[in-house]
Amino acid sequence: MIAPQRFAERLPFVDACAWVDARADRSCAERIYLRESFGRILAESLLFPVDRPDRDQSLIDGYAVLAESTFGASSYTPLLLTLVPRSAPLVAGLASVCHAGETLPSGADAVLSREAGDAVGAVLEVCDAVARGAGVGRRGRVALRGDVALTAGCRLAAPQIALAASLGVAELSVRRRPHVAVVLAGAKPPATEALGAALAALVTRDSGIPRLIHCEGNIPGALANALPADVVLLVGRSGWGEDDDALRSISAAGGRIVHHGVAMTPGGSSGLGWLGAAPLLLLPGDPISALIGYELLAGRLLRRLAGGVASWPYPMRRLTLARKIVSSIGISEFVPVICNGCEIVPMALPLADGLAALARADGFLVVPAGLEGYAPGTSVNVVLTSDSISGQESG
Amino acid sequence: MIAPQRFAERLPFVDACAWVDARADRSCAERIYLRESFGRILAESLLFPVDRPDRDQSLIDGYAVLAESTFGASSYTPLLLTLVPRSAPLVAGLASVCHAGETLPSGADAVLSREAGDAVGAVLEVCDAVARGAGVGRRGRVALRGDVALTAGCRLAAPQIALAASLGVAELSVRRRPHVAVVLAGAKPPATEALGAALAALVTRDSGIPRLIHCEGNIPGALANALPADVVLLVGRSGWGEDDDALRSISAAGGRIVHHGVAMTPGGSSGLGWLGAAPLLLLPGDPISALIGYELLAGRLLRRLAGGVASWPYPMRRLTLARKIVSSIGISEFVPVICNGCEIVPMALPLADGLAALARADGFLVVPAGLEGYAPGTSVNVVLTSDSISGQESG
Repeated sequence: MIAPQRFAERLPFVDACAWVDARADRSCAERIYLRESFGRILAESLLFPVDRPDRDQSLIDGYAVLAESTFGASSYTPLLLTLVPRSAPLVAGLASVCHAGETLPSGADAVLSREAGDAVGAVLEVCDAVARGAGVGRRGRVALRGDVALTAGCRLAAPQIALAASLGVAELSVRRRPHVAVVLAGAKPPATEALGAALAALVTRDSGIPRLIHCEGNIPGALANALPADVVLLVGRSGWGEDDDALRSISAAGGRIVHHGVAMTPGGSSGLGWLGAAPLLLLPGDPISALIGYELLAGRLLRRLAGGVASWPYPMRRLTLARKIVSSIGISEFVPVICNGCEIVPMALPLADGLAALARADGFLVVPAGLEGYAPGTSVNVVLTSDSISGQESG
Repeated sequence: MIAPQRFAERLPFVDACAWVDARADRSCAERIYLRESFGRILAESLLFPVDRPDRDQSLIDGYAVLAESTFGASSYTPLLLTLVPRSAPLVAGLASVCHAGETLPSGADAVLSREAGDAVGAVLEVCDAVARGAGVGRRGRVALRGDVALTAGCRLAAPQIALAASLGVAELSVRRRPHVAVVLAGAKPPATEALGAALAALVTRDSGIPRLIHCEGNIPGALANALPADVVLLVGRSGWGEDDDALRSISAAGGRIVHHGVAMTPGGSSGLGWLGAAPLLLLPGDPISALIGYELLAGRLLRRLAGGVASWPYPMRRLTLARKIVSSIGISEFVPVICNGCEIVPMALPLADGLAALARADGFLVVPAGLEGYAPGTSVNVVLTSDSISGQESG
């Protein structure tokens, strides 16, 4: 009457990750406005369309001159030049005020520093000679036409957006955000609403566009409604019990599960497969297992599909275990932790109600399948999900 | 003709941070739907409205029984119980299948593990005695009515949303996102568009709601248009030169600058003040100084106002400098860096065009005002802005 748990057949977690990674081909791009591109992944490299700078510039605050006008000047034998507005072309005997970053006036080939000149009315007393090119930033100094400005695959943050705009770019090609159908087959309202809201938030965090689909008893119908999508998440009815009809429903909808059961905990009844051309991830229906199953497998798939890195979007830090962790050989185990300064305390996830524990956690670690756990005092890599822990200081 | 830079009068960076922090009183909250609450900061603690669980539950998969029905059972002298559906109330001599997390049938006071029973049709052979309470999770085990479920100030991620939903919460009180008027007074289009897009993205990243205002030559008019706002950023015309009319314009609009000039670089001509009741931050108009001025001062203000932590929303890691950094005593210096494994290389920010450098950086560090820089090989705290660097591995 109670179905056996088929541990022996479960796919190792690293193999499940490899399956997920193999689904993350990076084909699709879309053009969007630069002003809406924050956080997106660039799909095609941007090149400098012209030399940068595209003309000679002053590197310092001072006076634009022809170098030859200053030859022979010293503090004992100053030379006098006539100051003209900076719009005027320069010839020998003239100078004009210029600031760092400004285009050199036509004719000028050097910039005299402020300290080497003394302006009195329209007369500049030059106290030092400068060589041709002194104080001048040459055209093409930063980049030449055709050089790569932003490399495909980079994430667009504020400096990248400002640089792209300075190239005259108003639209650009970015990796498309994957459309993710989240089919809720397990719990009933309001539990299913809760899980839906949490999963939708995670999909959004990982650059996906979520669409929630409630089954209302008809899983094959809901699955039919899930396509088109880039990824399908089927949540619930994933186990080996009598009412666990996810696998039958997937078959009925024309999909298939390639691997049922992953050697991880929680989330061991997860599955990997296909619905049409879309990768389908089957996740358990209880909230804890669903959320952690998402974090261990689905989030990785979405981040890779969106062009990002596989790792969790949280900082990782090496911290010391205050208590031992016991874990089963052969199973990768997700362990939430509480931080106490540089020490971490692993938390139990009570079977019946781990949500309250998970909501209090500062982060988590994953015990690899090959280990029986960790002794107290072991230094371990912890993913810190709570931003109150990162502990930066400004100075 | 060239205005002097008034280094001596600049406010130390740490004092500017303290001024910013003093503006970040945390008064305003708003009620929103739980399903839209991802990433927000909870303004009022949520309490458990009932004991959790609110009735006794099974902790294991097995058979609900009255403990007394099993007394005397052993593998040599098994006792026989009658299996009934789990909806039926239990009395002595009966048992029903139950799974972990399920409510205990009425009358039951213990759960026999699967291994201790052998079901044959409607008969359960009991091979071990259990004590009253064995395998049972008592009502209120996780929390009692009135206990704190989520503490005010916590950031709402997936587990917190799922927990709140499981409490029956559909709306909750979160910290309001600050409205930020970004007044662009410096560069002309398209440079000002670029800067606007980049600053709007940073404001959004830091939980603010940006509103871009282009000055078109009339800064006092644009400032008048900036209110109401929780924060005003005035970008450009911040220096000490002839065309730097930001301070005059702020006065003309009825605002004031309390500190002009911060001992930091880039961004040294930044200012701190007020426009009406809103804190006003004056930032330089060149893109590099504006973006870094934002990162050093404005972002901190927005994150604090939104209820978050002051630190940058990026991981920090301790890494080794491959080259020396020379910095001026008395000035806090922002230095972008490139990562090479565990080593970092500081980048120059060319005066005339640092955007291309900043867009390539993997992160940054801030040299405190009290240091002349760092020797090669020094271990320093680096804020990693590039997500390709964090280098987590799953296992």
